[in-house]
Amino acid sequence: MSERDIHANNRVFEKAVADGDVGQIAALLAPDVISLPPDAPTMFGKPAVTGLWAAAIKEHGLTGFAITTDTLDFAGDTAVEVGHAILSMTPLGAARQTAKVKFVVVWKRLNGAWLMHRDIWNADVS
Amino acid sequence: MSERDIHANNRVFEKAVADGDVGQIAALLAPDVISLPPDAPTMFGKPAVTGLWAAAIKEHGLTGFAITTDTLDFAGDTAVEVGHAILSMTPLGAARQTAKVKFVVVWKRLNGAWLMHRDIWNADVS
Repeated sequence: MSERDIHANNRVFEKAVADGDVGQIAALLAPDVISLPPDAPTMFGKPAVTGLWAAAIKEHGLTGFAITTDTLDFAGDTAVEVGHAILSMTPLGAARQTAKVKFVVVWKRLNGAWLMHRDIWNADVS
Repeated sequence: MSERDIHANNRVFEKAVADGDVGQIAALLAPDVISLPPDAPTMFGKPAVTGLWAAAIKEHGLTGFAITTDTLDFAGDTAVEVGHAILSMTPLGAARQTAKVKFVVVWKRLNGAWLMHRDIWNADVS
């Protein structure tokens, strides 16, 4: 069940952030993943995107991620997800803060596993 | 040729912005389009997204849009585009300014026409 797989991936992602476990995040990424973080350059490939999440956790104090899926559409081995999320961050020496974002994630099924292929987000105000 | 169609759509979008012609933009949108502009709520459906572009042109003085496609992947009647763009804006009473953005657009083929189905962008620094 593809839909269930992708929801399960999101739960793994949330747990990986809570655990500070970058390896679990890396396991969700396609080899040719592209991530487009706000106010930063586009990141191409699994090593670069893994590094992005490592920095989010280690440098920016990302400790929580709560993901809500709004729409999920399938086209063969491609799935397009629209959603929103709440991030919790505790930067070194600062108070815990939260940020609301909205996102589009494109998942690609490779050898039976749904992996993150495209990931972009920005600030939400809703 | 689907790839050519999507590149042509981007040229129509650029010309529509240059001409301030919101109708031409609306013609590129799927009925169930979702647009996720930064620092704003998610916009659902063609009327809301058309209104977003009308406001960008009329209220924020958007006069130019130069779109570059970085990757374009097809899955049946779905296409996922990653790219970047330069926007030119001349807000009322202010000097002309430009902004660099990067984006993911998901196109959907409906009755033979490729229409914008998902659209999200954020600030670029590259």
